[in-house]
Amino acid sequence: MSYADRWQLPDGVEEILPDAALRIEALRRQLLDLYQCWGYDLVIPPMIEYTDSLLIGLGQDIDLLTFRLTDQLSGRMMGIRADITPQIARMDAHSFKREGTSRLCYAGHVLHAKPKTPLATRSPIQAGIELFGESSLNADIEVISLLLESLDTAGMPQLNMDLGHVAVYRSLAQAAQLSAGQEQTFFDLLQKKSAADIQNWISTHISDQQHATWFAELPELAGDIAVLDRARNVLAGAPAAVFGAIDDMAAIAQVVQKRWPQVQLHYDLSEVRGYHYHTGIVFAAFAPGFGGTIARGGRYDSIGQVFGRARPAIGFTVDISTVNRLLVANKGVLPQQPVFAPYSDDPAQWQAIQELRQAGRRVICALNQQEVAPSECSHRLARAGEQYQLVEL
Amino acid sequence: MSYADRWQLPDGVEEILPDAALRIEALRRQLLDLYQCWGYDLVIPPMIEYTDSLLIGLGQDIDLLTFRLTDQLSGRMMGIRADITPQIARMDAHSFKREGTSRLCYAGHVLHAKPKTPLATRSPIQAGIELFGESSLNADIEVISLLLESLDTAGMPQLNMDLGHVAVYRSLAQAAQLSAGQEQTFFDLLQKKSAADIQNWISTHISDQQHATWFAELPELAGDIAVLDRARNVLAGAPAAVFGAIDDMAAIAQVVQKRWPQVQLHYDLSEVRGYHYHTGIVFAAFAPGFGGTIARGGRYDSIGQVFGRARPAIGFTVDISTVNRLLVANKGVLPQQPVFAPYSDDPAQWQAIQELRQAGRRVICALNQQEVAPSECSHRLARAGEQYQLVEL
Repeated sequence: MSYADRWQLPDGVEEILPDAALRIEALRRQLLDLYQCWGYDLVIPPMIEYTDSLLIGLGQDIDLLTFRLTDQLSGRMMGIRADITPQIARMDAHSFKREGTSRLCYAGHVLHAKPKTPLATRSPIQAGIELFGESSLNADIEVISLLLESLDTAGMPQLNMDLGHVAVYRSLAQAAQLSAGQEQTFFDLLQKKSAADIQNWISTHISDQQHATWFAELPELAGDIAVLDRARNVLAGAPAAVFGAIDDMAAIAQVVQKRWPQVQLHYDLSEVRGYHYHTGIVFAAFAPGFGGTIARGGRYDSIGQVFGRARPAIGFTVDISTVNRLLVANKGVLPQQPVFAPYSDDPAQWQAIQELRQAGRRVICALNQQEVAPSECSHRLARAGEQYQLVEL
Repeated sequence: MSYADRWQLPDGVEEILPDAALRIEALRRQLLDLYQCWGYDLVIPPMIEYTDSLLIGLGQDIDLLTFRLTDQLSGRMMGIRADITPQIARMDAHSFKREGTSRLCYAGHVLHAKPKTPLATRSPIQAGIELFGESSLNADIEVISLLLESLDTAGMPQLNMDLGHVAVYRSLAQAAQLSAGQEQTFFDLLQKKSAADIQNWISTHISDQQHATWFAELPELAGDIAVLDRARNVLAGAPAAVFGAIDDMAAIAQVVQKRWPQVQLHYDLSEVRGYHYHTGIVFAAFAPGFGGTIARGGRYDSIGQVFGRARPAIGFTVDISTVNRLLVANKGVLPQQPVFAPYSDDPAQWQAIQELRQAGRRVICALNQQEVAPSECSHRLARAGEQYQLVEL
């Protein structure tokens, strides 16, 4: 192995250098402090767990994203977390066993065995919250509000948010008595938004004219708030759960839009990422001009079931690395300009340096007599009689 | 897999619940802020790297501690970091390429395939610093000072510190022309402090009477500052490097002891953990009555060599999880008592809640009309005319 190779990092695995690291650390603190203020308790789940705990039926995606390794102590298969949500669900079900609502938050690295998209990082830094034990719309509203407040706090200047609800497609699929395989296939077609394939599939598989119309309309049910009324019309006659879902979306949107009038809400009744494990409202935040999501979440009331405790659950995850990348374009963080302390063994200089540091100033000490002030320093610590003072550089 | 097993965590892998998580987060921030004030730049190295970068001859210990996995993208072997120091050395050698001194700091999880000691965690949280490019005693003094300041800042009430220097044993072994294998074997005997084995080995392997005396004296050269003078006497005639090392220890100790008179310094010329990769002063901090180290470090000037850039280097690592455990006994962190906001859809209540949160207060909103204030709440947000006010609970 040559020197040239030794320092190579695996594709999509990043180290973060000081400017970005300082911004990411600041973001992390802002978000965790915000979550504390909203009543969410910080937990620190481990980086690795048995795959039995990490892979709890949240879909094949998470399965493929998870690095696996064998525990030398137990011989059991472990995984590096690719998502923190299952860990929080395990903690709610087992470690807390709280009655009533439980609010938890977290921040940390996750690792992906493969990048989610060709250019995605395999080592994202995430922060997020989970709210357990409450199934009402008020919980949905609190969580979506906190997501928007997170991105506001982070300083994201403009935001779009997609709102969906898994009950719409799920109820229509049940009404049409689709098999599990059919439900999945048509769902995949819907996500690809390929009109010809969708029409083709409907005409082959759906004989009932009413059902065929509903399915054909689904991809069109995306846009501004008017979509909800259009859906009520074109889906007339569909199962009651469909209208319940539409009413829920409208009620949530009304409160959220009043609180954040500047956020563009976009409704989509067919595009439902994470459909396999979600059970209600789903949402994702985007920045205009940036393709990927910066935060996403939804309701997944059954997530604790594998741990013996299915409770209402809703939460979201913010991708701190992505937020940081988006913010760099908008604002730079000016690091504090340090004070330079020339080499000296005078205890009074040490005293002066310690006082400056305790007051939060950054002081760089010369380690030998030749050392000159680094260019980023704004001041020099200089002796004046018995005292030390700052002299501008 | 039954429910009962699903939530099990691997041995020595811990999740951290809210009280401890909040304390650990506070410690992490205190330390990183301190390092910033001393001129150390924050970096965030990745959790995984190729083993070629992580395992750079820092000894078999690190090798055995490292979880390995195969990168699906490249087919190359990767490791989960068991120690952050090699990552920082790689970054200094390759990512920065700074001339002159470079000060870097970090905080994060590491993972160990096996626990270091039977009761040790396999998922410690560490913080630390590395100083590159300066070989003078002033660098040693800065780093040891920052270590002691770290533990002071963290609130550790009383500290002991061990000081050693690898040049003492290394020079004596060279003078006696020990083979690499002999040097290693006797070194291991010294660490075990087994007097009989040590005598036995010396009489078998060392024919020169002078060398035999030096080696026999080594285990005795441990204790307070008087050890250094005793060493100067009993090692009279030894290579100059031995006396250089003793002088360095005395010079460092003099400054450090003046700055932290309450710290008990303990000198040990034979016990040198991390001997294989260290090249100068080594040190470790202990709390009275607690067996393990809470922070450790030393000089390892050759660490960047495998990356094509050997520079003077010295640093330390603080075990945040251990500091937290030790502090719990001494002081509790009282979390902020939340305000309870009863269920309401009044926008004026939302306004009042947001203002409280922006002022840093923790406010927990009821999500339905039945919800009562959690017992930890100190106040209730109540309507008084047009306004909202806090009422004590």
